[in-house]
Amino acid sequence: MKIAQIAPLFESVPPRLYGGTERIVSFLTEELVQRGHEVTLFASGDSVTSAELVPCSVRGLRLDASIADPLPHFMLMLDRVLARASEFDILHFHIDYLHFPMVRAWRHRCLTTLHGRQDLPDQKPFYMHFGDAPLVSISNAQRAPLPGAHFAATVYHGLPADLLVPAARPSRDYLAFVGRISPEKRPDRAIAIARAVGLPLKIAAKVDKADEAYFRNAIAPLLAGDGVEFVGEINDLTKPDFLSNAAALLFPIDWPEPFGLVMIEAMACGVPVLAFANGSVPEVVDDGVTGRIVGSVEEAIEALPQVLALDRCLVRKRFEERFSAARMAEDYVRIYRRLARRRRNTAGAAIEPDLSDLGPGQEIAGGTRTHVS
Amino acid sequence: MKIAQIAPLFESVPPRLYGGTERIVSFLTEELVQRGHEVTLFASGDSVTSAELVPCSVRGLRLDASIADPLPHFMLMLDRVLARASEFDILHFHIDYLHFPMVRAWRHRCLTTLHGRQDLPDQKPFYMHFGDAPLVSISNAQRAPLPGAHFAATVYHGLPADLLVPAARPSRDYLAFVGRISPEKRPDRAIAIARAVGLPLKIAAKVDKADEAYFRNAIAPLLAGDGVEFVGEINDLTKPDFLSNAAALLFPIDWPEPFGLVMIEAMACGVPVLAFANGSVPEVVDDGVTGRIVGSVEEAIEALPQVLALDRCLVRKRFEERFSAARMAEDYVRIYRRLARRRRNTAGAAIEPDLSDLGPGQEIAGGTRTHVS
Repeated sequence: MKIAQIAPLFESVPPRLYGGTERIVSFLTEELVQRGHEVTLFASGDSVTSAELVPCSVRGLRLDASIADPLPHFMLMLDRVLARASEFDILHFHIDYLHFPMVRAWRHRCLTTLHGRQDLPDQKPFYMHFGDAPLVSISNAQRAPLPGAHFAATVYHGLPADLLVPAARPSRDYLAFVGRISPEKRPDRAIAIARAVGLPLKIAAKVDKADEAYFRNAIAPLLAGDGVEFVGEINDLTKPDFLSNAAALLFPIDWPEPFGLVMIEAMACGVPVLAFANGSVPEVVDDGVTGRIVGSVEEAIEALPQVLALDRCLVRKRFEERFSAARMAEDYVRIYRRLARRRRNTAGAAIEPDLSDLGPGQEIAGGTRTHVS
Repeated sequence: MKIAQIAPLFESVPPRLYGGTERIVSFLTEELVQRGHEVTLFASGDSVTSAELVPCSVRGLRLDASIADPLPHFMLMLDRVLARASEFDILHFHIDYLHFPMVRAWRHRCLTTLHGRQDLPDQKPFYMHFGDAPLVSISNAQRAPLPGAHFAATVYHGLPADLLVPAARPSRDYLAFVGRISPEKRPDRAIAIARAVGLPLKIAAKVDKADEAYFRNAIAPLLAGDGVEFVGEINDLTKPDFLSNAAALLFPIDWPEPFGLVMIEAMACGVPVLAFANGSVPEVVDDGVTGRIVGSVEEAIEALPQVLALDRCLVRKRFEERFSAARMAEDYVRIYRRLARRRRNTAGAAIEPDLSDLGPGQEIAGGTRTHVS
């Protein structure tokens, strides 16, 4: 198929540093190319891809100090997409809202993956209004606040199988926390759990400007004691070693996490996950296989020995079955084909193809159909 | 003509409080309706107009605490515009960037007035790319950073003639400063000038969150001495009295002001303006008639007696000649008609009508043609 991928411009594809969405767009794009699809990637000019790249900004906007407003750059990108729209069987958008009015006339060739939380009051009326534009959620939990929206499927994220692999002889002598230092991610809970069970904790995290006061007031004092090491932000080079040697990943979140990429990064390393039951967690963690799902710090302390006892080979195996980039690409191709077929079947008959059987009743989720009512 | 006005959603049209763009859209819309045009106003649902209102949000987004992200609301509005686009002879946008890719197919029925400063590095490549979309600048100075953009004209803002009028017996016992407390507006210069000439200064200004530190550190200490009164933010009810009794308006700006509405508000009251030569100032102030234009605090101190001696009747007269809402509406109708004629002449012949004679060489500015090379 001829496929356009439209990525955010904030980071390159793949990103140099942080940037979950751009990373997933990269994994998907490379898998699609490898499967023989003709893929055109609309992304920042410093992106690296085996697809055809349409550079839509000199570099990732976040790395460019001269950028004051990202909007004009996104609109320039959309104009480039518009100019070539007729070439593609499918246009796959990863940029939230900006394209919806523009693509109305060819919306049934368009698919939009929602990458963020969807519980802001601004979002519900928006997706109600554009109720005939097919969407993809990255967990079933993510779509809960949007009952009127037109979800074609849930497609869980995936990683290339060889990106992160188990360590040959993991040290397993610390618990790991990876993410942002923020009240939603609850590093304070990770510290409390680690201290209670007497295991060292290593915190690999960045501190956003918005969270500096939280770090200073709530977290820094907790770091003073023994057994907790703050290692700062880790990158793609240091992450494999950091994750794969951990005894377990702590994911004690307190927000509606739409997916939680770090959970499957840990699983790829064979590292089990101790996670709090919020957002996507019950869908991503197989309780008793790839980790344990808990509701409180007390439950977490009680469950940790079970987490440490899980078979790391089985954790890796389950990752390969459910969260590979190959599976993610196959899920998406199945949706692309279904949209294209629906369009052909109705061509000339109706200008608004019936996509109702792509609604919440039929899901492609983690390679298996699940039902969400 | 059938005209659509597309306003920002941040404030109602007209705004309850601050909101220069929404205010101008209101003045223009009411004048067009009065001239017999069929006007449809796309704006927030709490707008008040004699045109047909298409409500695009419940209320002005800035007054709605539940709004986290304005973008989905603007995209909903654009979708409503799209649904009715074929009805209009002219669609006049006041919302910066968001519509440009969407209106490509009917861009020669679209006009965009730029209301803000245009010297950000993001803007030049944007308007170069959309070089065939006709724009209106609100001063010639505003367009200086955008040499490649397609300006159809400069149209200076205008006010309804009876909105602000001279006081019967103005007290003329203070100098006035109106605006935001910000480093660009330079209230410190106003204070220095007033103290040097020994006249009381009244500062009617709001303090934005971003400027709180500047207010606290740079301005509050200056307010401690004699002769300066900080009266806070004024509204439409208190503004007439505040402005019309002033001896002069001080406008000692230090930034590329795109227009400077308060200057013509003062002139409407017959109040002369002492302004610094930045941005639009040399176009808006007639030096020696409606005020004096200076380059430094020293020059301002020297010029103030001349400003106070200006004939307030002539100030008001020049306001009526150059800055009435009637003149503004006539300027815009002339551009609307020209765009429509150009479209008819080329219909069927070319899909890209030649609009070159609407370029910078021919301007409609303040009712007279001016040349900008």
